[in-house]
Amino acid sequence: MGLCLLGWNTVPVMCLLQGITSEGVCYPSVPYWRCFQDVHVMIFVGFGFLMTFLQRYGYSSVGFNFLLAAFGIQWALLMQGWFHSYKEGYIHLGVEEAGLINADFCVGSVCVAFGAVLGKVSPVQLLIMTLFQVTLFSVNEFILLSLLEVKDAGGSMTIHTFGAYFGLTVTWILYRPSLHQSKERQSSVYHSDLFAMIGTLFLWMYWPSFNSAVSKHGDAQHRAAINTYCSLAACVLTSVALSSALHKKGKLDMVHIQNATLAGGVAVGTAAEMMLMPYGSLIVGFICGIVSTLGFVYLTPFLESRLRIQDTCGIHNLHGLPGIIGAIVGAVTASCANAKVYGIKGLANFFGFDGFKTSWDSSMQGKFQAAGLFVSLAIALVGGIIVGVILKLPFWGQPADENCFEDSVYWEELKSTVLHPEDSTLKPAEP
Amino acid sequence: MGLCLLGWNTVPVMCLLQGITSEGVCYPSVPYWRCFQDVHVMIFVGFGFLMTFLQRYGYSSVGFNFLLAAFGIQWALLMQGWFHSYKEGYIHLGVEEAGLINADFCVGSVCVAFGAVLGKVSPVQLLIMTLFQVTLFSVNEFILLSLLEVKDAGGSMTIHTFGAYFGLTVTWILYRPSLHQSKERQSSVYHSDLFAMIGTLFLWMYWPSFNSAVSKHGDAQHRAAINTYCSLAACVLTSVALSSALHKKGKLDMVHIQNATLAGGVAVGTAAEMMLMPYGSLIVGFICGIVSTLGFVYLTPFLESRLRIQDTCGIHNLHGLPGIIGAIVGAVTASCANAKVYGIKGLANFFGFDGFKTSWDSSMQGKFQAAGLFVSLAIALVGGIIVGVILKLPFWGQPADENCFEDSVYWEELKSTVLHPEDSTLKPAEP
Amino acid sequence: MGLCLLGWNTVPVMCLLQGITSEGVCYPSVPYWRCFQDVHVMIFVGFGFLMTFLQRYGYSSVGFNFLLAAFGIQWALLMQGWFHSYKEGYIHLGVEEAGLINADFCVGSVCVAFGAVLGKVSPVQLLIMTLFQVTLFSVNEFILLSLLEVKDAGGSMTIHTFGAYFGLTVTWILYRPSLHQSKERQSSVYHSDLFAMIGTLFLWMYWPSFNSAVSKHGDAQHRAAINTYCSLAACVLTSVALSSALHKKGKLDMVHIQNATLAGGVAVGTAAEMMLMPYGSLIVGFICGIVSTLGFVYLTPFLESRLRIQDTCGIHNLHGLPGIIGAIVGAVTASCANAKVYGIKGLANFFGFDGFKTSWDSSMQGKFQAAGLFVSLAIALVGGIIVGVILKLPFWGQPADENCFEDSVYWEELKSTVLHPEDSTLKPAEP
Repeated sequence: MGLCLLGWNTVPVMCLLQGITSEGVCYPSVPYWRCFQDVHVMIFVGFGFLMTFLQRYGYSSVGFNFLLAAFGIQWALLMQGWFHSYKEGYIHLGVEEAGLINADFCVGSVCVAFGAVLGKVSPVQLLIMTLFQVTLFSVNEFILLSLLEVKDAGGSMTIHTFGAYFGLTVTWILYRPSLHQSKERQSSVYHSDLFAMIGTLFLWMYWPSFNSAVSKHGDAQHRAAINTYCSLAACVLTSVALSSALHKKGKLDMVHIQNATLAGGVAVGTAAEMMLMPYGSLIVGFICGIVSTLGFVYLTPFLESRLRIQDTCGIHNLHGLPGIIGAIVGAVTASCANAKVYGIKGLANFFGFDGFKTSWDSSMQGKFQAAGLFVSLAIALVGGIIVGVILKLPFWGQPADENCFEDSVYWEELKSTVLHPEDSTLKPAEP
Repeated sequence: MGLCLLGWNTVPVMCLLQGITSEGVCYPSVPYWRCFQDVHVMIFVGFGFLMTFLQRYGYSSVGFNFLLAAFGIQWALLMQGWFHSYKEGYIHLGVEEAGLINADFCVGSVCVAFGAVLGKVSPVQLLIMTLFQVTLFSVNEFILLSLLEVKDAGGSMTIHTFGAYFGLTVTWILYRPSLHQSKERQSSVYHSDLFAMIGTLFLWMYWPSFNSAVSKHGDAQHRAAINTYCSLAACVLTSVALSSALHKKGKLDMVHIQNATLAGGVAVGTAAEMMLMPYGSLIVGFICGIVSTLGFVYLTPFLESRLRIQDTCGIHNLHGLPGIIGAIVGAVTASCANAKVYGIKGLANFFGFDGFKTSWDSSMQGKFQAAGLFVSLAIALVGGIIVGVILKLPFWGQPADENCFEDSVYWEELKSTVLHPEDSTLKPAEP
Repeated sequence: MGLCLLGWNTVPVMCLLQGITSEGVCYPSVPYWRCFQDVHVMIFVGFGFLMTFLQRYGYSSVGFNFLLAAFGIQWALLMQGWFHSYKEGYIHLGVEEAGLINADFCVGSVCVAFGAVLGKVSPVQLLIMTLFQVTLFSVNEFILLSLLEVKDAGGSMTIHTFGAYFGLTVTWILYRPSLHQSKERQSSVYHSDLFAMIGTLFLWMYWPSFNSAVSKHGDAQHRAAINTYCSLAACVLTSVALSSALHKKGKLDMVHIQNATLAGGVAVGTAAEMMLMPYGSLIVGFICGIVSTLGFVYLTPFLESRLRIQDTCGIHNLHGLPGIIGAIVGAVTASCANAKVYGIKGLANFFGFDGFKTSWDSSMQGKFQAAGLFVSLAIALVGGIIVGVILKLPFWGQPADENCFEDSVYWEELKSTVLHPEDSTLKPAEP
C-alpha cells in the first residue's frame, strides 16, 4: 500500500493515463454539447442559487443572475464573434469553436463580479456592468489567448481572477459607509442556506466539465476533468477541517462549506489540462481549502474595515486568491513541462509550439503564463475603476443604504408567512 | 462593429454554421441518450417544481406531477409503440427511434395541461386525464408527423398548442364559480417562489436539448439547439423589461420571471431545426417575451372573469399563445425554404421530399404546417370537452371549492412550523 | 392492441432491441463521461437532499454527505486503484476503467449506510465509518466481480445490499434506548419535505445512467437504461397506490413518495443489463413498490421496537429488501439466459464464458450470482459489527440522546425566522 501511494504520488510518467505520451489522440473525446449544458447549469443554477443565502434577497439573487446572464450571453456572442469568428462579413456561430460555450464562460466572469456587489446595486446597474465587463473580458481573453498564446482552459486568469478583481474594484468605488443599516438582512436563515447549497453542489459537481470544456479533445480533456475532480475533493476536506478548527467550539460555518469547498476548482483552472498529475491536484486543492477558509475568517473583515471593500459573497476568497494561485500553478506547471512526460510531438502539439512560437520552450511558455496574470489584473483594476465611477452616477435606481439586501425594493408583493393548516377550515374531500 | 451586427443579422447564407448547404452531415451528432436525460429532468424537476409556487400545494405539485408522468410514460410507450414501432407482433423499444424520448415528449403535453387544472382536481382525475390525453396526443402526433408529414421537432404544435388548449378546455368544463373561497391559498410565499425558480431554470437551461432531441443528427440538431438558445436569451430580456414597465412602481413580478421567460423556447419549437437564423430566433424570443407577459397581466384575468376559464398556472400565456406563434413561425419558415440556403439535396433531404412528397415544394410544406396547427387545435378542443365532461362526474374525489390549492386534502400530517433552536434545550456535545 | 400488449409482454426474442442477438455491438455506446456526471449528481445532490427531510438536520444532511463523499472518493480511488488498476508501481486513473465512476459507486454505498445512522453520529464518526466501509466495499467488490465473476452492473449486491446491511448493523450496535427524547425533531416540516423531493427526483431521473454506467458499451448499456426506466416508472404507481390504500383516510405519505418510488431502480441493478425484457422490469418495479411501502408502514416500526434497529431514513425498505430482491432477480435472470435470446457468441461474450469460466453455463452463473449475495451479506454484517463497536467508543464527539437530529450541535448560528417585510422600514428606491 505504501508502495502504491508512493507510485501514485511521485512518479509522473504513465501515472495519470495510459498512452499519455502519444499526441493526445488516444482517449475518446467528450462531446462539447455535454460540457456546454453542464456549464449552462453552473451559470444559471450554480451561481444563481449560491447567492440565495441572503435571507431577504433570494428573488434578486436568482432573478438578477438570470437576467444578467441572459443579457450577457447575447452580448458575448457578438463580442466574441467579432474577435474570434468574424469571417467574410458574418459571425459564425457554433456550440464549440465559436460561441455558446465561450459566451457562457464570459458570463461566468460577470456572475463572479456580481457576487461582490450583490444586494447593493439595481438591475439597471447590473446590466451596465455586464455590458462593460463582457467587452473587457473579450479584450482580455483576446490578448491572453490569441496574442500571448497563454493556456487557460478553465479560466483561472480570464474568468476568475479577472472577474473577482473587477468586481472588487467596482464595489470599492461604490463603497457605502452606512451599509451597517442593512446589517440585519446581510445574513442567512435556515432555509436560505439550504437553497444556497443547491448552487454549491451544482457548481462543485459540474466543475470538471467546466475546466475541460474547451480543452483539446481526448487526453487533455480527460486530464482536465480528473485533475479538477481530485482538487475539488481535497478542497472539501481542508475547508471543513479548518472551518471547525477556527471556531471556538469546533462548529462548522455554512459560509465556508458553501464557498471554500469550490476554491479547488478555481485553482486548477489553468493547469488542469496540463500534466499536473493527481497528486499535484490534491495538493492544490488541499492548499486552496485552507487559503479560502482563512480568507473568509480573517481577510474579508479586514478588507471591509480597512480597505473599504464590501465583498458580499466573499468572492475574493473563492475566486480572487484561488484564481491567482491557479495562474501561478499554471505558469509553474507549464515551465516544468518536458518531452519526457508529454513526448516530443505531444509537447509541441499541446502548447502549440509552431508558427511564431516555433522557437519557444516550456520555460518561455511559463513566462507568458505569468504575464497573462498581470495583464488580467491590470485590465480588471483599470476597467473596474472606470465602470465603478459610471455606476456611481446617481440616476441608476440604486437602493438606499437601509434598503440593501432587500427584495421588496425591486419585487412585488412579498409575503413570508405560510398559512397554517389549522388556519384553514377544511372540509373532507368529496367521495 | 456595425458591419458585424449587420452581417450577423441580415445575411442568411453561411451565417449560422459553416457547411450548412451540405446534406446535413458535417457536424457531429449529439448522442440521443444525453438529450433524453435532459428532457427527463425537464419533465420531472422542471414542470414539477415550476408548479410549486402555490404556498400550500407544493407536495401535490411535485408529487402528482411525478405520479402522472410515471404513469403517462408507461402508457405512452404502449400507445406510441402501437403507432410507430409495431412490427411482427412486438413493440420495439429504444432510447431514440422508438420510445423513451417520445414517451417523455408525450408526457410533456400532459404536464402542460396539468398546469391549467392545478389545485382543482384529484389524483384520480389526473390519472384519467393522463390516460385520455396520452391517447389523443398519440393520434394527433400520428396525423401530423406521419400523415401530413409536418415538421415539428420541438413540439410547438403537438406538445404545447395541443397540451395547452386541451388543458384550457378541460378547466373550462370544470369551471368552479365559488373558487374565490380558496383565493387566499392561490398565491405564493417567499420560499415557494424560490422552489418554483428551480423548475424555471431547469426548463430554461435544458430547452435547447428538448428542441433538438429528435432532430436529424448533425446540422439540424445543432441549428435547433442554437436557435433555441438565442430565442430563450432574448425572451428573458423582454419579459423582465415589460414586467417592470407594466407595474406602477416599476417592480418585477415573480410570475412573469418564472413563466414568460420560457415562452421563447416554446415559440421556436417548430422552426428551430430550420434555417431560422440567429437573428430570426432573437426576434421570435423578443416578441414572445412581450406577448407572454402581456398575457399574464391582461389576458388571464379576462379569461377567468369573462370566459370562465380558470387557468391556475397561466399556461395560455406560456404554452398556448407561444405555441400558436411557433406553429405560424414554422409554417412561414418552411414556406421560405429554398435551395439557395439549404442546397438542392439538402432541401429535399431535410423536408423529406420523396415518396408521395416528390412533387412538393417549400410552399406546399408551409401549407401542411398550417394545416397541422388547425388539426392540433381541433383535436385539443374536442378531446378536452369529452375528457372534461368525464372528469365532471361527481365520484372522482375532487376537492370542494374551499379546499382547492390545499395539500392537506391529499397528504398526511402537514406541519409548517420549524422548531426554533431556542425551543430545544441543548446539551453540549460529548467530548 | 391486445395482440400488441401480448407481444410486448410475453415474447422475449427480438422484442427489446433489434439486433439483440448480435455480439453486443450494434448500438452506439453512451459516453462514460456522461454517465459519470449523472452518477456524481446522484451522490451529491440526490443522496444529500433526500436526507434533508428532517426539520432540523438539513445542514448536516447535505453538508456531512458532501464531506463523507469527498473523503470517500479519494480513499476509494486509492483502494480501488490498488485492487483493480495497480500496474508497475503506479495506480492508473481514468474516468471509465479505473477510477472515477467506481469511486462514486463505492461512495454510494457509504451514502446508503449514512441514511441508517443519520442524525445520531458525529462527523468524526462518519469519516471513520467511511474509511472502513470503503475498504470493505473494495474487498467485497473484488471478491464478487473478480473472484466469483458475478455480474452486478447496477450494484444491487455490492452497493445497495452491502451498504444497507452494513449501515443497519452499525446502527444496531449504536442503539440509543433514550432516542425518544429527540422524537419531536425526527420528523419533517413542509419545506424540508420539498427539499427532500429534489433529492428523490434527481435520484429517480438519473438512475438509468447509474445502472448502465459500467455495463458493456452498446446493447447491454441500452438494455440497462431501458429496463431501469421501466422498473422505476412501474414502482412509482404501486408506491403511490399502496401509500393511499394503507392510510385510513386514503391520504398519501411523503415518506413513501420520497423513498419507495426509488426501490425499482435498486431492484433491477443486477439484472438490468441482462435480457430482463421490459415486461420483466415492469413486474420487478411493480413488486418493489409494494414491498418497499409495506416495509415503511409495518417493518420499520417493528425493527425499531423489537430488534432495536433505529433506521432513520428507512434504508432497509429502500436499499435492503430491494437489494436482496435485485440479487435474486439477477441470479434467476442469469440462470435463464440461453443462446436463443443472446446468440451463442453473445451469451459467451456477455457473461465472459472464457478463461477459467470456459466450462460454465448459465445455470452455473446463476449459482455464483446467489453466492455473491451471501458473501455481500456476510461481509456487511461482520464488518458492521466491527465498525459499530469502534464507533461506540465514547470519544468521537457523538451527540447526546436529546441532541440528535439537531444541526445546532455542529453548526454555527442557526436562525429559523425570516425578517418580515413589514418589520423593515423601507424607503423608496432612489430615482
